[in-house]
Amino acid sequence: MMNEYIRKINYYETDKMGIVHHSNYVRIMEEARIDFLEKLGYSHEKLESEGFYSPVVAVSCKYKKPLNFPDEVRVITSVKSCNGVGFVFAYEIYKEDELMFCGTSEHCITSTDYRIVRIKNEFPQFYNALCENIK
Amino acid sequence: MMNEYIRKINYYETDKMGIVHHSNYVRIMEEARIDFLEKLGYSHEKLESEGFYSPVVAVSCKYKKPLNFPDEVRVITSVKSCNGVGFVFAYEIYKEDELMFCGTSEHCITSTDYRIVRIKNEFPQFYNALCENIK
Amino acid sequence: MMNEYIRKINYYETDKMGIVHHSNYVRIMEEARIDFLEKLGYSHEKLESEGFYSPVVAVSCKYKKPLNFPDEVRVITSVKSCNGVGFVFAYEIYKEDELMFCGTSEHCITSTDYRIVRIKNEFPQFYNALCENIK
Amino acid sequence: MMNEYIRKINYYETDKMGIVHHSNYVRIMEEARIDFLEKLGYSHEKLESEGFYSPVVAVSCKYKKPLNFPDEVRVITSVKSCNGVGFVFAYEIYKEDELMFCGTSEHCITSTDYRIVRIKNEFPQFYNALCENIK
Repeated sequence: MMNEYIRKINYYETDKMGIVHHSNYVRIMEEARIDFLEKLGYSHEKLESEGFYSPVVAVSCKYKKPLNFPDEVRVITSVKSCNGVGFVFAYEIYKEDELMFCGTSEHCITSTDYRIVRIKNEFPQFYNALCENIK
Repeated sequence: MMNEYIRKINYYETDKMGIVHHSNYVRIMEEARIDFLEKLGYSHEKLESEGFYSPVVAVSCKYKKPLNFPDEVRVITSVKSCNGVGFVFAYEIYKEDELMFCGTSEHCITSTDYRIVRIKNEFPQFYNALCENIK
Repeated sequence: MMNEYIRKINYYETDKMGIVHHSNYVRIMEEARIDFLEKLGYSHEKLESEGFYSPVVAVSCKYKKPLNFPDEVRVITSVKSCNGVGFVFAYEIYKEDELMFCGTSEHCITSTDYRIVRIKNEFPQFYNALCENIK
Repeated sequence: MMNEYIRKINYYETDKMGIVHHSNYVRIMEEARIDFLEKLGYSHEKLESEGFYSPVVAVSCKYKKPLNFPDEVRVITSVKSCNGVGFVFAYEIYKEDELMFCGTSEHCITSTDYRIVRIKNEFPQFYNALCENIK
């Protein structure tokens, strides 16, 4: 599954260079990831109700072309990899058909008391859902 | 007590008009209030350890002159009023000697399960500390 | 005209109290205002192309009930008043049918070199559009 | 040169997991970088007055341990590499003596009309200052 998430740039996300401040892409990635997981059947609430958190372990961002207000963007999210303890999402942000940004986020799964969990063993249906969707 | 809190403007707080985005003043007010309460002996942790939260009930902002990166500002915080259930802080932001902004925030006190508390009765030492510092 | 703007709360807008941080409502108000003005025919780009900015002069916020992730909210925006030099927008944020927040923002109009402009004289069609939509 | 930048965590930087939201580290990195460059003699204004911008081309973040309000952190910034067209900063965030986060940011230099500039040729004193400070 490659998920498409449509999103307008907000005025308050710009900076004095007249473009979207680079920190805000990490927030756009989070929105797109939450949308992806919801469509996969694993919303944030679903994960929490099963007793799991999925903290961000690492993030990478490549800024190719600046975005600006009032651009409308498409964020394409996909699972890049998944192993027994963690998984990686990849993001591409397009304005019309032009690739403006690409990034990744790496996650683990913890219990609600923040103990790292082997997702393959302790949450296999989520593990399988991710693996089946590796692009 | 009038508390002075010194603070640099951050680049990421600007917007494409080239000035500090108006939403960020609410955050600067929070920083200044936390600093004030800490100096008064009622840090956030102290309040929580006593079993209290102090949520924001209302906020007002008057933007007089724009701030910009890399301005350095002084925020003068004072208690404007305090009654049995709530209290109001006033804030003035100066750049050098010029008043750039003024604002207020109104607060109540709740227990950690969000029940509103009569601070005069249930947390009198905090109530007194506030009243003694009304400007 | 009363404009309805639908909006999901983002995870990154919450704070450690588990609710939407109070500064973010000012940003939601901005989104709703931009949406309102766009539908009125006066998008940000339209205003700029006519040679005008509309800076925020003042803001007020009343926090009635906390919002949380992943709430979906409706923001109702209306023109509250308009005179020769400025205008005021009013905002109500609803979760389902419950009023969670209300706020106002006050604006003036400047030329792109930040000189305050008498909108009734120098930008009458915008002035009229606002006046016709006072709620 | 390794620059040390001291910084308090702000309440509004936390999220509902009770920790600093991961997007905010990119902002802390920016603060630390601006502080570093200022001490190096190349403040943002100095760069601009020379006719240069230094946009962020890429960012990477590794979240090792969560930060929380009201932590005080030390950000250690250093130049990791520098070639004819770009340079990379490395950041480590410590709470007391524990490494909580490390990250990098990659930059190029452009003219104020956003044309990429060969910094070694067109801005050699800045290039040299960076190279001399590679850690």
